[in-house]
Amino acid sequence: MPRRSASPALVDEKEVLRILEDLGRRVAEQVLKGRPPSIEIPVRTLANTIWDPERRLLMLGPRKARRDFFDVGEAKKFMQTVLMLSLIIRARREGDYPTIRDLYYTGKHTIVYRDERGHRRTEETWDDQQESNSVIQDIEVATGLLREHMGIMHDAKGKIVGNMVVRSKGYEIDLSRMGSGAYAIPPNVDKLEIVKVDAKYVLVIEKDAIFERLNEEEFWKRENCILVTGKGQPDRSTRRMVRRLWEEFDLPVYVLTDADPYGVYIYSVFKSGSISLSYESERLATPGAKFLGVAFTDIDEYKIPRNYIIKATDRDIKRAKELMRYPWFKGSKEWMRQLKLFLERREKIEIEALSGHGFKFLTNVYIPEKLKKGDWIE
Amino acid sequence: MPRRSASPALVDEKEVLRILEDLGRRVAEQVLKGRPPSIEIPVRTLANTIWDPERRLLMLGPRKARRDFFDVGEAKKFMQTVLMLSLIIRARREGDYPTIRDLYYTGKHTIVYRDERGHRRTEETWDDQQESNSVIQDIEVATGLLREHMGIMHDAKGKIVGNMVVRSKGYEIDLSRMGSGAYAIPPNVDKLEIVKVDAKYVLVIEKDAIFERLNEEEFWKRENCILVTGKGQPDRSTRRMVRRLWEEFDLPVYVLTDADPYGVYIYSVFKSGSISLSYESERLATPGAKFLGVAFTDIDEYKIPRNYIIKATDRDIKRAKELMRYPWFKGSKEWMRQLKLFLERREKIEIEALSGHGFKFLTNVYIPEKLKKGDWIE
Repeated sequence: MPRRSASPALVDEKEVLRILEDLGRRVAEQVLKGRPPSIEIPVRTLANTIWDPERRLLMLGPRKARRDFFDVGEAKKFMQTVLMLSLIIRARREGDYPTIRDLYYTGKHTIVYRDERGHRRTEETWDDQQESNSVIQDIEVATGLLREHMGIMHDAKGKIVGNMVVRSKGYEIDLSRMGSGAYAIPPNVDKLEIVKVDAKYVLVIEKDAIFERLNEEEFWKRENCILVTGKGQPDRSTRRMVRRLWEEFDLPVYVLTDADPYGVYIYSVFKSGSISLSYESERLATPGAKFLGVAFTDIDEYKIPRNYIIKATDRDIKRAKELMRYPWFKGSKEWMRQLKLFLERREKIEIEALSGHGFKFLTNVYIPEKLKKGDWIE
Repeated sequence: MPRRSASPALVDEKEVLRILEDLGRRVAEQVLKGRPPSIEIPVRTLANTIWDPERRLLMLGPRKARRDFFDVGEAKKFMQTVLMLSLIIRARREGDYPTIRDLYYTGKHTIVYRDERGHRRTEETWDDQQESNSVIQDIEVATGLLREHMGIMHDAKGKIVGNMVVRSKGYEIDLSRMGSGAYAIPPNVDKLEIVKVDAKYVLVIEKDAIFERLNEEEFWKRENCILVTGKGQPDRSTRRMVRRLWEEFDLPVYVLTDADPYGVYIYSVFKSGSISLSYESERLATPGAKFLGVAFTDIDEYKIPRNYIIKATDRDIKRAKELMRYPWFKGSKEWMRQLKLFLERREKIEIEALSGHGFKFLTNVYIPEKLKKGDWIE
């Protein structure tokens, strides 16, 4: 499987500005030459999302769309793209770090114009943040840059601890010396230099409370692993962090979630990417990630008491059926077995159900045993 | 205003175990002496929640309830309390750090018994986590310990950066050297030793994305302040951290939220505590916290464009009316003016609306200006 692919960490700030300005310059040059201005942007629709079985990634397909300024149906989108591009370039030139919401507000204003009959008309540059976010995504695919590279800020919910050292803004940060706390993963993981990693594997934990517990117990020190949590559905930064540890340091990555379709989905996002962000899979997904548990078969395997078992909801059932159609699950006998078992029994459990065998069961028995036996699912 | 009150930081682990065992021992002694066992627990209801105007805190009132084992209506609650107490004591003795959910599962089992007619009957120790969490709260009020002191783990969503050094598990952690990341506040803030603080004030930011932006801009370095975010409604750990900085280091605390009733509520929780956790206000609330903004009057004051203004929802209106009944707002002329203005106009804005005046407006104009003029609300 190809690791070390096209994912340049430590993207240079000047280079980012140059790429953004190039896109703007191409439009300006068209105007100056008296040509009708247009921008070409890869299409981000489900129809243009393809599964690359060799690289095991959800990728954007080859389709591109041209946005013509002189096409009435596209003029607004064209204007939005150029407006957003100019805001991002301004922020980069002035060393500002706006959030996606800042960009929405800064660009939001009312355009007043006269229509073909001379009537005064108004139009908002964008009506809601969904519109402005979508334009940011267009600029991402058009430039090949992630919004993180463009200095755009957003919530960052990931945490990490373990035997590794990172460098950020000139400071060396030792992630084995965070005590009971942890290092909060920054929004732009590519500005982080990973100086040193001394660990055998990465353990990604769905739930923050379990991350806290394993950190307090110093599980990562005993097991010599890196502990990461994305607190449920992971954000881009957490996924990028895990991807870099896998890609640049050849670390095996294991994911621990509840035994329910949502947990399997979280694993799937870490591993193969999400459909809405397929253009980012190449940088955010970790195709080598393994599902350590909790598997649906573990309910029997680990003799989980009946009164710990939760009845599946209709949403669970729907999600499980969707998962069965994902190509990376469809091609796996073991995943089909797991998901069929779930649909048959309609039973799920949480990671914490293992505590029925004692508080230490998860860390002293379950995880080490699974790792020793190679009892994971790919 | 009395700072340095009864909130012992760095609670000794042995002391915690002793306090917990004492509670258990009192029950055991009653049994051994042939007396009907009972436990006395302060009542955690709204009716027993009082506003202490002098200390400016929501506190638990003096009412206590006796739980008698031989009272049919209370026997189950009595059993639950003793069961949970035994689980927590076991965890402390064995150095385990269960989550509240671990405790739920570990204690959950089916009791089989015969009723007065000899029929086989079953009863679950508890049916859902709400029941087991409630028992943990009872043990908190009965012992005067926070669950954090008892080594019980939970989600921790707070982040902090600035010129300060903490010590945890023997490591000195310099929160001015986190680079683009931050220090994730641990669940038990009282195990953290605050070694050194060199800052003029604490700025608490509602929104994580804005925290990230201010951190990336190194606002805290320029302004010499401590930046904290609780990501919306703050958890106990974030509140405890802010309280400690205020109490132990005499730092002024300013809270920055959206201009909406939810933002005001978040400020209120930091300042005076929440009704459901009134027994913890003494340790978690920061009565000296000041509301820096965004105030409803700022919509005019800072000439926010009309199309940035959001129409209030029915929920906003309902919450604003509730806030007006809180004693700490009721007693403040300025708060009454703000909330009345909101109810009159039914308009709210987000912090990011200030970006309409440029990306740097928030950090270069709004915050410094408010601080310089003393333009905050208490």
